[in-house]
Amino acid sequence: MSVSSALLPNDIPDFVDYPVDPRISRATASDGQVTVVWSDAFSARFHFIWLRDNCACHSCINPVTREQVFEIDTVPLDIAPRTVEVSDQGGLFIQWANDDHQSHYHPGWLRNYCYSEIDKAEPKRKPTTWGAGFELPEFEAADVLSDDGALRDWLSALYEFGATKLKRLALEEDIVGRVAARISFMRETNFGTLWNVQSLPQTNSNANTSLELPPHTDLPTREQEPGLQFLHCFTNDAVGGQSVLVDGFRVAETLRKADPGLFELLTQTGIDWHNTDRDTDYRCKAPVIGLDADGDLWEVRYGNFLKGPIFADPDKMPEVYAAYRRFMIESKNPDHQIRYMMEPGDMVAFENRRILHGRDAFDPGTGARRLQGCYVDRDELLSRLRVLNRPGG
Amino acid sequence: MSVSSALLPNDIPDFVDYPVDPRISRATASDGQVTVVWSDAFSARFHFIWLRDNCACHSCINPVTREQVFEIDTVPLDIAPRTVEVSDQGGLFIQWANDDHQSHYHPGWLRNYCYSEIDKAEPKRKPTTWGAGFELPEFEAADVLSDDGALRDWLSALYEFGATKLKRLALEEDIVGRVAARISFMRETNFGTLWNVQSLPQTNSNANTSLELPPHTDLPTREQEPGLQFLHCFTNDAVGGQSVLVDGFRVAETLRKADPGLFELLTQTGIDWHNTDRDTDYRCKAPVIGLDADGDLWEVRYGNFLKGPIFADPDKMPEVYAAYRRFMIESKNPDHQIRYMMEPGDMVAFENRRILHGRDAFDPGTGARRLQGCYVDRDELLSRLRVLNRPGG
Repeated sequence: MSVSSALLPNDIPDFVDYPVDPRISRATASDGQVTVVWSDAFSARFHFIWLRDNCACHSCINPVTREQVFEIDTVPLDIAPRTVEVSDQGGLFIQWANDDHQSHYHPGWLRNYCYSEIDKAEPKRKPTTWGAGFELPEFEAADVLSDDGALRDWLSALYEFGATKLKRLALEEDIVGRVAARISFMRETNFGTLWNVQSLPQTNSNANTSLELPPHTDLPTREQEPGLQFLHCFTNDAVGGQSVLVDGFRVAETLRKADPGLFELLTQTGIDWHNTDRDTDYRCKAPVIGLDADGDLWEVRYGNFLKGPIFADPDKMPEVYAAYRRFMIESKNPDHQIRYMMEPGDMVAFENRRILHGRDAFDPGTGARRLQGCYVDRDELLSRLRVLNRPGG
Repeated sequence: MSVSSALLPNDIPDFVDYPVDPRISRATASDGQVTVVWSDAFSARFHFIWLRDNCACHSCINPVTREQVFEIDTVPLDIAPRTVEVSDQGGLFIQWANDDHQSHYHPGWLRNYCYSEIDKAEPKRKPTTWGAGFELPEFEAADVLSDDGALRDWLSALYEFGATKLKRLALEEDIVGRVAARISFMRETNFGTLWNVQSLPQTNSNANTSLELPPHTDLPTREQEPGLQFLHCFTNDAVGGQSVLVDGFRVAETLRKADPGLFELLTQTGIDWHNTDRDTDYRCKAPVIGLDADGDLWEVRYGNFLKGPIFADPDKMPEVYAAYRRFMIESKNPDHQIRYMMEPGDMVAFENRRILHGRDAFDPGTGARRLQGCYVDRDELLSRLRVLNRPGG
């Protein structure tokens, strides 16, 4: 049987250039699956129903939007091929038994989405955690603003280490938004889209006083904390106000090792995070340490000055407090901290769902201190990294 | 012992007017807790450590920001009172043994945060689910835009039923943003802040074609789907294009009852949601049905045209597809659907993490069809409702 259409790039429902080699050399059907063997002897199996659902033809995928139009409820659950063949182009060609529909699979696309190797398409992140002595990876702001390679290097470091610094970012109002635009767009909150951190006589946030800010994440009070935080220094002339960063994943790892029961409590006990103002009332009940489905560290959520009265089972309240207080103590352990003075033109960028940030108290009578900041969500970081890392991208 | 300061409103670290009556009539300390009895005989116990952490004095709470300054690691975990008394104002007065610090608790505040009745401070939502025959609660747009009582009524209905309609919203560009501003601000995405739904020759979304859109939630590809979606109709003259809404919680409840094993699979199996474009690549692996820690329905995440190739344990792939396909079939069951034609000036508002929306195909040759929409996050809805529901608010 011949294949009617050539294996064109737009037979692939995404924007990655998959390699045509190795081609498929053999394909056989049995037990509800097609076993595919590539020319380098790699083999994998694909269920009939999965294959039918991933047909990339122009009646199953809208070629303009590259989004699916086909719906799997329009075919039987026990759908089966009439014929399974290797196409002239080294792809997989299937003619379906129920309705003569034809599907053609690109050899590189199929191999990439081979699900017998879970998450082959996008390997899981292995964050590199750090403590005292860590030197923030530094990047030239001008390069990041103009060059996609520099952008990729910066974002890759940010994703791996959770914290980085841009140097010599021009002292222009709102330029931090131009940096954010290199990723996508900023996340607005009740504090605005771009905001200033400075000591004010009237304010709704301890950030805008001259008080010490113990290490914390911003907006633990939201169901999803902002993913990235950027802080751009315009002026830092006051006495005090040294900056602190702590890798919250390192704090969590330390506790996991030192006291597994306490760690488990911190992952399972919702803490009541509150941020109330005259016109807003944000609350979120969520644990200090969030794990993903595999039990790996997913996020840290911690800002003591944004903690409301804790609701917990009265029988467990003493151990909840013991665990919470232990996290607090560990977050202030100098072994985990890096400390530095922000200089005009510095922009620190960190993952707000992993890295705790803080500052010493400062004396506003001795000089001005102003940072400008914004948030960008983690989805946007990941999207930009995927696009920058596309083959040929 | 006398109480040094009167029980002023700003001794409360939030913005609610708590009732002073019933006052506290008795307070005794034992076993690490204070037992408090109010004048109506209600009694509750509070742990010493919890009480110390919730001291509302002006050295523990910054009176300007009403955020905490006190840190619980500065006192021993086994902190205990030297004296526990009922104050002249019917509050609870404690003098602490370790450092002579004094704490004074408002009787209404303390009762509100009584944690022996879990979540007394904010009762859990009990959504009212619906199916065919449900009539969308309707509200006058002009009232919602100008009157806080009407705003509260609308948002309360939206929170309970998940879907509502505003009538006679002026046909002004961007006015949907003014409606959103009654809550807070809009959530930006790669589709912009305000966007149009209309048939376009070149587009990155099936929404902007004339194709049928089966019931779905928007942006299942983001770690957190947008909470609310507003769609404001400017023109709807084309043949076809009838709108569909489905209560995803009802679909989930139906499946939970009909097939608990399949339901469990839908809550535990991550589906690979993808939305790729030339410049963006959003992916999220998350189940179709999300439950909270109590096992109650939390969110629905489902848009077949935004599903990528599924990665799952090969041994489980057949049952994953059976469950996914079953959800799809149930989501199209007319017993769950309400159908209506959008008329110019109508604005539907629905919870995008609960309600599935869709439309029939339409013929763009027969007339224009344009909706303008935006997203607002669930945090913002909840914050606004809390403020609107504050006593005296």
